[in-house]
Amino acid sequence: MTVEIVSLNRSHGGMQGVYKHDSRETGTRMTFSVYVPPHQGDAKLPVIWYLSGLTCTHANVTEKGEFRKTCAELGLIFVAPDTSPRGEGVPGDPAGAYDFGLGAGFYVDATQPPFSRNYRMRSYLTKELPELIASQFPADLNRQSILGHSMGGHGALTIALSHPDRYRAASAFSPIVAPSQVPWGIKALAGYLGENKGAWRKHDTVALIEDGARFSDFYDHSYYFVSTFMADHLRWHAARLKA
Amino acid sequence: MTVEIVSLNRSHGGMQGVYKHDSRETGTRMTFSVYVPPHQGDAKLPVIWYLSGLTCTHANVTEKGEFRKTCAELGLIFVAPDTSPRGEGVPGDPAGAYDFGLGAGFYVDATQPPFSRNYRMRSYLTKELPELIASQFPADLNRQSILGHSMGGHGALTIALSHPDRYRAASAFSPIVAPSQVPWGIKALAGYLGENKGAWRKHDTVALIEDGARFSDFYDHSYYFVSTFMADHLRWHAARLKA
Repeated sequence: MTVEIVSLNRSHGGMQGVYKHDSRETGTRMTFSVYVPPHQGDAKLPVIWYLSGLTCTHANVTEKGEFRKTCAELGLIFVAPDTSPRGEGVPGDPAGAYDFGLGAGFYVDATQPPFSRNYRMRSYLTKELPELIASQFPADLNRQSILGHSMGGHGALTIALSHPDRYRAASAFSPIVAPSQVPWGIKALAGYLGENKGAWRKHDTVALIEDGARFSDFYDHSYYFVSTFMADHLRWHAARLKA
Repeated sequence: MTVEIVSLNRSHGGMQGVYKHDSRETGTRMTFSVYVPPHQGDAKLPVIWYLSGLTCTHANVTEKGEFRKTCAELGLIFVAPDTSPRGEGVPGDPAGAYDFGLGAGFYVDATQPPFSRNYRMRSYLTKELPELIASQFPADLNRQSILGHSMGGHGALTIALSHPDRYRAASAFSPIVAPSQVPWGIKALAGYLGENKGAWRKHDTVALIEDGARFSDFYDHSYYFVSTFMADHLRWHAARLKA
């Protein structure tokens, strides 16, 4: 695997890199960013995947996400992939809309031509890129978690629900959770996966849960659940009460 | 205002109390708990309201919520009221069900007899109890926030949406967010408020938002929003990646 270094910047004691490589899954040159926090020489660190939303590339969160201070403090590798394949010959939305095609891969493996050749973001993110990260960075793939924003929140939740034993946690900022039920989601799922709505259900958080998918998370509705997350809520309230 | 001290226990450097008083709103004797964290003599502290779920009293979160260590660290007063009026002459569910009547006040002011006399939890929580807390504890009512669990999450969200300038934050554990749409919610809202569904909308989080209610919170879908809450997500993931 050959990885091109686009940029390297020291930040918060660690190293923020941007990289490119030729992807076997998408058939295109793909860009991603990785922040490696300060760590001891032979340490293997947990990996947190961040999936971005419509119109984004790796750059939005890398430049504006303010994650490095906390990742440095907590010892987390932070990986931010692109949101779709790009480049010459990659088909986009015929009308040039922002919600399909370039910047709008919806984290699926497309089955419909002409998108099925390049739009293989699901396999790229769950197979190819983890292998590359493990080979090039001090990453412990036994400790992965995933989060995302908007379309990336959809990606994080559907991928985690589809791999319940792989990710120790999943979270989202304002995710798309029921793409089968809204016009732009219907456009994307029909465009990438065809008209058979059975295939859509594996890429719809609400449908996945209806169909029985769960994280490996045995919390229930009891005070064992409430008390586990009470401190999270209190810190969040305190920050606002004292602002 | 006369407040009976039921119990006082030193915990995490502060004081956990359980109290009773005669409520003018409910016409009953009401029990609530208050944790006051360690603080300087003349300090006025922020107040966080915790609303409990169906079948609960003040005792569930007080005994099992594991909030005291964090409230002590952050300097928060934590108030846990009961979930309904109780006592002789207070009507409950005619069939003795758990989802209506005693332990199931749904945080409304009932308009339907025989419940309208005692089931005034909304006014109790937003008028009477804040006055009492301010008079008896070192509370700064300019800094209040609210959270809850299940039916209490419903209460926290609907009350905060109805008082957008009063609470600086609102959060919930697994809240009931659309009671107008589910059988037990319909049972409760019809029982307390009557068959006019217009009156239900002020006690349904989804309907309140549909009708334009908002917190005083100007976050949008941008990276100014994502980056503000990024650290919250990262700490949550880190706790699970390192467990």
